[in-house]
Amino acid sequence: MKKFIMPILVAFSLPAVAQSQEKDSLTLRRLADEVLTHSTAYDNLHTLTKKVGGRLAGSPQMVKAEQWGVKALKAAGADTVYLQECMVPHWIRGAAEEARIISKRRDFIPPLNVLALGNSVGSGPAGVTAEVLEVASFDDLEAKKDQVKGKIVFYNYHFNPTFIKTFHSYGDAVKYRGQGASRAAKYGAVAVIVRSMSHAANNFPHTGAMAYDNAYPKIPAVAIGLEDADRLSQRLKDDVDAKVFLRTNCMMLKDTIGHNVIGELRGSKHPDQYITVGGHLDSWDVAEGAHDDGTGCVQSIEVLRAFKAAGVKPERTLRVVLFANEENGTRGGRKYAEVAKAQQEKHIFALESDAGGFTPRGFITTVDAAEKAKMDSWKALFAPYGIYDFDEQGGGVDVGQLHEALGTPMAELSPDSQRYFDIHHAANDVFENVNKRELELGAFGMAALIYLVDLNF
Amino acid sequence: MKKFIMPILVAFSLPAVAQSQEKDSLTLRRLADEVLTHSTAYDNLHTLTKKVGGRLAGSPQMVKAEQWGVKALKAAGADTVYLQECMVPHWIRGAAEEARIISKRRDFIPPLNVLALGNSVGSGPAGVTAEVLEVASFDDLEAKKDQVKGKIVFYNYHFNPTFIKTFHSYGDAVKYRGQGASRAAKYGAVAVIVRSMSHAANNFPHTGAMAYDNAYPKIPAVAIGLEDADRLSQRLKDDVDAKVFLRTNCMMLKDTIGHNVIGELRGSKHPDQYITVGGHLDSWDVAEGAHDDGTGCVQSIEVLRAFKAAGVKPERTLRVVLFANEENGTRGGRKYAEVAKAQQEKHIFALESDAGGFTPRGFITTVDAAEKAKMDSWKALFAPYGIYDFDEQGGGVDVGQLHEALGTPMAELSPDSQRYFDIHHAANDVFENVNKRELELGAFGMAALIYLVDLNF
Repeated sequence: MKKFIMPILVAFSLPAVAQSQEKDSLTLRRLADEVLTHSTAYDNLHTLTKKVGGRLAGSPQMVKAEQWGVKALKAAGADTVYLQECMVPHWIRGAAEEARIISKRRDFIPPLNVLALGNSVGSGPAGVTAEVLEVASFDDLEAKKDQVKGKIVFYNYHFNPTFIKTFHSYGDAVKYRGQGASRAAKYGAVAVIVRSMSHAANNFPHTGAMAYDNAYPKIPAVAIGLEDADRLSQRLKDDVDAKVFLRTNCMMLKDTIGHNVIGELRGSKHPDQYITVGGHLDSWDVAEGAHDDGTGCVQSIEVLRAFKAAGVKPERTLRVVLFANEENGTRGGRKYAEVAKAQQEKHIFALESDAGGFTPRGFITTVDAAEKAKMDSWKALFAPYGIYDFDEQGGGVDVGQLHEALGTPMAELSPDSQRYFDIHHAANDVFENVNKRELELGAFGMAALIYLVDLNF
Repeated sequence: MKKFIMPILVAFSLPAVAQSQEKDSLTLRRLADEVLTHSTAYDNLHTLTKKVGGRLAGSPQMVKAEQWGVKALKAAGADTVYLQECMVPHWIRGAAEEARIISKRRDFIPPLNVLALGNSVGSGPAGVTAEVLEVASFDDLEAKKDQVKGKIVFYNYHFNPTFIKTFHSYGDAVKYRGQGASRAAKYGAVAVIVRSMSHAANNFPHTGAMAYDNAYPKIPAVAIGLEDADRLSQRLKDDVDAKVFLRTNCMMLKDTIGHNVIGELRGSKHPDQYITVGGHLDSWDVAEGAHDDGTGCVQSIEVLRAFKAAGVKPERTLRVVLFANEENGTRGGRKYAEVAKAQQEKHIFALESDAGGFTPRGFITTVDAAEKAKMDSWKALFAPYGIYDFDEQGGGVDVGQLHEALGTPMAELSPDSQRYFDIHHAANDVFENVNKRELELGAFGMAALIYLVDLNF
């Protein structure tokens, strides 16, 4: 890496553009050294995951997480730290779910390991017992719609292994989790079971948000792990009279108060212009929310800390936002955009990290052609850090609200995606599955992009 | 990914080069689909790690691993499978090592978690008890050479966190493991303790090969984990009279017989020309040798299986080699090169996988300018698979022997390196730390490179 740093004397003889790139490459190296040597991101993540834990909107842990965020942003060196209030939904899981296959046969059948989907209604104390109709897809559901009434519909749609970026497999499959209940209720289903959105070689069920179409009855919805999904599918073939008993205890309570946690590093030239960087502070209740999205929170805080510690002063005000309630409402992201619009704030750029704390490969972006051309001109600056992929379009869910409200250019960190859906929304999304250096390299990549955007957008 | 596959009708109207790239892109997609959907690599790795386990040269597990290799290559569809005999060193660890800090103070001091370095002599049954001289580097050792006599030298050289590719940190630090004992014995040291070559946030000691300079006495050499290294260093500052007791039970026995395991898929046009692809079958004794180098073995076997299953017929003979004794002798690699040279075989290319079964990012290569230009022209073919980095020079240790003997162009798979030195040569190099998709994407990358080399070199 040392060869990338050219002696200052040589730089003087270079033309202006090369001199500017030379200065930028030195600043990026300084930021990288700072993050890789002195980052507090990993320790911060340890506290958030182990002392706070799962922190769904409305839970006591949500409040503890907000307190943690304030403290961590102050420790990182923010000039100002404050809370931005917003109403959040308050869904609770209640007592643990249960599910089992009911058969007239006498063999021992292990229980199914299930998790209620977020926002789902519960089954009531008696639970639901019904025959199961397995469908491979919505098309298959439509073809079998006359058989649905009174049954539990089992969406056994497989995560497509041939996509290289696993988010494409997720985009392909997630509709069964989101819309499956109402699509089945339309034809009289009494509950739905969804094969988890995962490639994992294990049996963890993966929860996640679902939503009801108010035109149809609200029926319970659960996820099962991949091994149980295969086992249930096989049982239904072998034992056509088998039924499933399902009991969930979840419910939606009244909205309650949550907060976006915001820390600022005041801009040296344009303090009234903003660059936002953030992740979401909430997580599902069943794990520690390490990769989703503890890593995005601590990386965003690290960007501010590294700027300050490395003496890199942003011209615009850097605003770190730990968004409330991304998982089952996006109320934090919406509130942030709403306030920005109402106050006529000038937003230059918004960056999110919500795709896991794995080794960074690039950024997905929604920017105009001139901005994209600038980003492309930075490729040589990022190449020594293994960050090379700037060509996919997109952006984060939370900063997407700001983009929608104000047209703010946006990006999301794009880490290696292969392991994300092993742990996404499942009980194994824990601190131990985060690698310190991978986390830090992502934080560096974010700091580097913000440094360049601040100077050039 | 579907958009990458253009309709055949369009292809007909393209010029010849574009048509060829179009055909190649379709073949790569076919290989990727085959590997990502039907790979046996992960199951093969499970058997090798869980049924065979650690398999150092000369151990009974070495023999079991060879038997496994023959079976796995036949199952993958090799036309011919055979063993190539070679003599291998036979180093044994003996009973577990022990080490502790001896102090006149009365506080409880937990034992040090140590592993003898491979090829090291043992301490004898009485062990070694001596004062400890900590040095930060070989320069520091030279400066303190008058203080070395009768002491245990503790190399507390830190893995440099600012290199982006961790193999560069390894290259920078590994000399303390390899040469540290004799460099200290030169000045009268009685043993050496080496800080493990790792960034890991844990305390696993990492073993690995060392070698003696016969000019000096052979003294015992051990590694300790990072937490113990920091603890020992602190103790030596706080408690200047502290000593360390160290007992190791390892020894070098007489050479014994091992084998390279070789499977071939006969070339359709030039069966007497060879393309080699391999990993090493041996591993350290203290773990399962999952990433080092079970993954390289099962990926190499998968290349053959995928070619056969996808109906891609190589023009040259594809030779999968599971090399013996890479870890503490490289005798397998040397034997393979020696036989190739003696039999005047024509070798077109040799590819190794021995850097972990993580998501592939590219290949390090040693090829001539014309070959490099061809490889660069394939970048667009690899880009959809996240494989983009072809610019670092190098090659694997085993295929390096063939390169040295015959000048054969060579390459090594270059996976994401961030997690490798968390597990390298340590007890946590186990199956559970390998991700199925990451492993498979690496195997696909290898198959793709070999397909293109076979047609174009």
